[in-house]
Amino acid sequence: MPSQPAKNLETFPNPHPNNNYSIRFETNEFTTLCPMTGQPDFAQLTVEYQPAERCLESKSIKLYLWSFRNEGHFHEDVTNIILNDMVAACQPRWMVITGHYNIRGGIDFIITARYDKP
Amino acid sequence: MPSQPAKNLETFPNPHPNNNYSIRFETNEFTTLCPMTGQPDFAQLTVEYQPAERCLESKSIKLYLWSFRNEGHFHEDVTNIILNDMVAACQPRWMVITGHYNIRGGIDFIITARYDKP
Amino acid sequence: MPSQPAKNLETFPNPHPNNNYSIRFETNEFTTLCPMTGQPDFAQLTVEYQPAERCLESKSIKLYLWSFRNEGHFHEDVTNIILNDMVAACQPRWMVITGHYNIRGGIDFIITARYDKP
Amino acid sequence: MPSQPAKNLETFPNPHPNNNYSIRFETNEFTTLCPMTGQPDFAQLTVEYQPAERCLESKSIKLYLWSFRNEGHFHEDVTNIILNDMVAACQPRWMVITGHYNIRGGIDFIITARYDKP
Amino acid sequence: MPSQPAKNLETFPNPHPNNNYSIRFETNEFTTLCPMTGQPDFAQLTVEYQPAERCLESKSIKLYLWSFRNEGHFHEDVTNIILNDMVAACQPRWMVITGHYNIRGGIDFIITARYDKP
Amino acid sequence: MPSQPAKNLETFPNPHPNNNYSIRFETNEFTTLCPMTGQPDFAQLTVEYQPAERCLESKSIKLYLWSFRNEGHFHEDVTNIILNDMVAACQPRWMVITGHYNIRGGIDFIITARYDKP
Amino acid sequence: MPSQPAKNLETFPNPHPNNNYSIRFETNEFTTLCPMTGQPDFAQLTVEYQPAERCLESKSIKLYLWSFRNEGHFHEDVTNIILNDMVAACQPRWMVITGHYNIRGGIDFIITARYDKP
Amino acid sequence: MPSQPAKNLETFPNPHPNNNYSIRFETNEFTTLCPMTGQPDFAQLTVEYQPAERCLESKSIKLYLWSFRNEGHFHEDVTNIILNDMVAACQPRWMVITGHYNIRGGIDFIITARYDKP
Amino acid sequence: MPSQPAKNLETFPNPHPNNNYSIRFETNEFTTLCPMTGQPDFAQLTVEYQPAERCLESKSIKLYLWSFRNEGHFHEDVTNIILNDMVAACQPRWMVITGHYNIRGGIDFIITARYDKP
Amino acid sequence: MPSQPAKNLETFPNPHPNNNYSIRFETNEFTTLCPMTGQPDFAQLTVEYQPAERCLESKSIKLYLWSFRNEGHFHEDVTNIILNDMVAACQPRWMVITGHYNIRGGIDFIITARYDKP
Repeated sequence: MPSQPAKNLETFPNPHPNNNYSIRFETNEFTTLCPMTGQPDFAQLTVEYQPAERCLESKSIKLYLWSFRNEGHFHEDVTNIILNDMVAACQPRWMVITGHYNIRGGIDFIITARYDKP
Repeated sequence: MPSQPAKNLETFPNPHPNNNYSIRFETNEFTTLCPMTGQPDFAQLTVEYQPAERCLESKSIKLYLWSFRNEGHFHEDVTNIILNDMVAACQPRWMVITGHYNIRGGIDFIITARYDKP
Repeated sequence: MPSQPAKNLETFPNPHPNNNYSIRFETNEFTTLCPMTGQPDFAQLTVEYQPAERCLESKSIKLYLWSFRNEGHFHEDVTNIILNDMVAACQPRWMVITGHYNIRGGIDFIITARYDKP
Repeated sequence: MPSQPAKNLETFPNPHPNNNYSIRFETNEFTTLCPMTGQPDFAQLTVEYQPAERCLESKSIKLYLWSFRNEGHFHEDVTNIILNDMVAACQPRWMVITGHYNIRGGIDFIITARYDKP
Repeated sequence: MPSQPAKNLETFPNPHPNNNYSIRFETNEFTTLCPMTGQPDFAQLTVEYQPAERCLESKSIKLYLWSFRNEGHFHEDVTNIILNDMVAACQPRWMVITGHYNIRGGIDFIITARYDKP
Repeated sequence: MPSQPAKNLETFPNPHPNNNYSIRFETNEFTTLCPMTGQPDFAQLTVEYQPAERCLESKSIKLYLWSFRNEGHFHEDVTNIILNDMVAACQPRWMVITGHYNIRGGIDFIITARYDKP
Repeated sequence: MPSQPAKNLETFPNPHPNNNYSIRFETNEFTTLCPMTGQPDFAQLTVEYQPAERCLESKSIKLYLWSFRNEGHFHEDVTNIILNDMVAACQPRWMVITGHYNIRGGIDFIITARYDKP
Repeated sequence: MPSQPAKNLETFPNPHPNNNYSIRFETNEFTTLCPMTGQPDFAQLTVEYQPAERCLESKSIKLYLWSFRNEGHFHEDVTNIILNDMVAACQPRWMVITGHYNIRGGIDFIITARYDKP
Repeated sequence: MPSQPAKNLETFPNPHPNNNYSIRFETNEFTTLCPMTGQPDFAQLTVEYQPAERCLESKSIKLYLWSFRNEGHFHEDVTNIILNDMVAACQPRWMVITGHYNIRGGIDFIITARYDKP
Repeated sequence: MPSQPAKNLETFPNPHPNNNYSIRFETNEFTTLCPMTGQPDFAQLTVEYQPAERCLESKSIKLYLWSFRNEGHFHEDVTNIILNDMVAACQPRWMVITGHYNIRGGIDFIITARYDKP
């Protein structure tokens, strides 16, 4: 079984720090394991933020999200963990993350978490 | 005929009480009986709330909604009953519930109820 | 030719007068006659309101809308007549009605009327 | 109450009798009454045919369909009546009619009838 | 808890036995219980048939489908049971039934069964 | 070549001057000519306004829009000309017009102009 | 008022006469005038054909379709005229044309004409 | 890291062996690893078959598909492996599988494999 | 290999400087090269602005966007470069640009940048 | 300006030569230049084939399609060139290619070419 990448988010300097702009990225390829049953969970993730000094590097985003593939996580928890990690990495003016978790038992869950720089 | 589950909503501690986030869940599998005719009614339900101290546990949500299956309820009433029960169970900062009831007599009804912590 | 129902809107007491909620109903089965040509007109109607003391009873809504079937009405007029009748019947906190009238001469008309309790 | 038009389908000579072509027309403005309850029914109608000597005239199609507005008809019956009337009027090589009747009691009905010249 | 209707499918004589036509009906309000867990299952059902001597009566279709509400059934089985019952009731030239069962464990099932008169 | 109608917008008295309502009309049948090349341009137009004393009459709207058919107009210009003409004709509380012009050279243009009564 | 282009369809040699392929083109910018009322009609046109020796040149297609802009034509007639003209110009193995004419009086018309080389 | 389930497909006797019916199941939760780069791949899978003596059991389908989660597979190969395994397990009259693999390098791949009993 | 057009944005005087209106244009035909790998990138671009003294000329917009075809650019950078160039060219009251870059590695990026006249 | 890749299509041995299956790939990132004006053209391409001895390798497909980026090609021609090249490379049992070229002058073109092994 292949090893997973580490939870490492790289950044680069904001190329237009004087411009008022936001960056959104979306993937429908996020998967973890249910911590109760060990069975796979799947989600669509959307992250939007306004960069301050630094932007998140796109390849490291891919590897970071991949790193959750074989870990057990509750929906509410993992969505906030990703928010906290990404905020810590790039220190944005604000960031919003939405995780839309696939139907289980006839119900789907959508968690939306927001950070605003104090 | 199988017995129905009790109206029991379980909760767990909010894993990120310092984060600003909301939880939404959706199902198109809610059904009750019409209290006038006894015939089945069907609805799509959406609930969104901002947790304070506690979150609603997902399996108990499924069982709680199932418990209405063979009870007679008016649309306006049952939507508010669910809001009141869920608010009582997890004491959220706010909660919004929308019930979209299937067409009867060429008309569909959509009830939206909102709670805000005083 | 069958007789049409009278324009009678019945109400029932708001079952949750202390809750903050709204009721929306939609139909794509509203039809009148053009007062100029006598030819049928068709519309999709949506009504949303926040109940105060009383709610509109659903069967009487169906009969009330049916009562316009063989009457001649201009779009702007009939949309406001329905608003005024429904407001008079249930005295809501607010009510919004939208009538989307089918294409005639390559143009469709959408009338939106709103009432707010003074 | 305005009078309804008669069930009169007019035709005109096929302008291209040597060409291999079909004519389809669609409307979402067909309405009759339920013969059991007297309440309005609504349908989307589609008719397609290959003209032989004559084509159906479009204004008379509109008036013909309007003529059912205040008559009581079962779905299966009225769809075949329209087929038979239109076949009698224009004697096509073939004709197919589909009536999609709006949801009643949670069920919608779609009747498809076909005529082929012997 | 209200009693369920009996599994009784009524018919009426085909009003146009010399016409070549089919009848399709659709509902998204079919629900049974899982025979393993007792939990509710939900499906969208579509039935299409070509009537011979008799047609299925629409109100009895609604009651018949309702009769499965609190019974335990496997998807493959109940779809064929409905086909067999409806074929027995109206003896059609052919009939096709499709049951689209809601997602369980990330997978949805669609069963399509067909009868052709020998 | 047939003559075009004049640019004449007729009005009628607002039937509900004490009600708070707006009128929107939409067409996908607006066409002009490019003033540079003489070639046809096509657009979808939407107009919404809140009537004060008078409403725009629907047949004259159709004729007015038709009058641009064989005239050369730039997108930005003609959208504002229509706004100005309609505002002059019915003196609304506010009016918004959107013209969505079909793709030319891989780009489509959407002009939105707004009038508010001073 | 600008003059309209002539009805001239140009062709070029099929660049791959030994390949088995078809060419389809679509436009939602076809407009004529109603020969009864003189008012504009609008349609979406689709043409597909299998080229034999020659292909239709795309700029001349645009000019050809533009040439109908201020002419009066019935739907059934003009669809077949375009088929006949295009077949005459490029002598294809087969050609199919579909004209979808916008709603008039609540009904839209779709004419489909087909040519097959004898 | 949790262990994966074994590739074990269970079956049950066809409950209606005399009926003519097919079973289709769909999931958008299939994931493997790229054998070149080790990075995750994602696909939507659809399987349809006509059962003969036995049907595939739904829980074992879920576990079987899960078993590919951390294995390296090429798209063309894994789609055929699943077909072969499922055919071996339930010996159907026919089976069709479609795997729609998510975009990589701007291109998505759709593999469709079919088995017919000799 | 053909030469690319220069980065030249032409303008014309705002024809309605006293009107309150905005101009939006959209294209799904924007392409650049990845500065890391040299491989093509593709995006959908939308630009909306409120003109002050001058408007952007549409043909020069097409040529300007074409000029990026064979240049290497990061998503965040090129979106802001286009904003800055267009603002410099026409000095609008405000301008918003959104670039939606096609999926790479399972993730798509959407950059939204905004300028407001100080 | 970066150099373009060569027109080199690589293949690999069909891993399941005894299975009956097809491979389809789709991209919305195909772009060439108009040979008349030098301006960019854009298309969505779909290719489906049944492999015989060999399959097209996915990375070389991407590079092959990229190689057309700065070449001038007519729609009818380039679609058939791609078919011929891919057939020559992998010698399939059959192959179908569809190129949907973006709107120019209000018209879009869709070319479909098919190869069948003699």
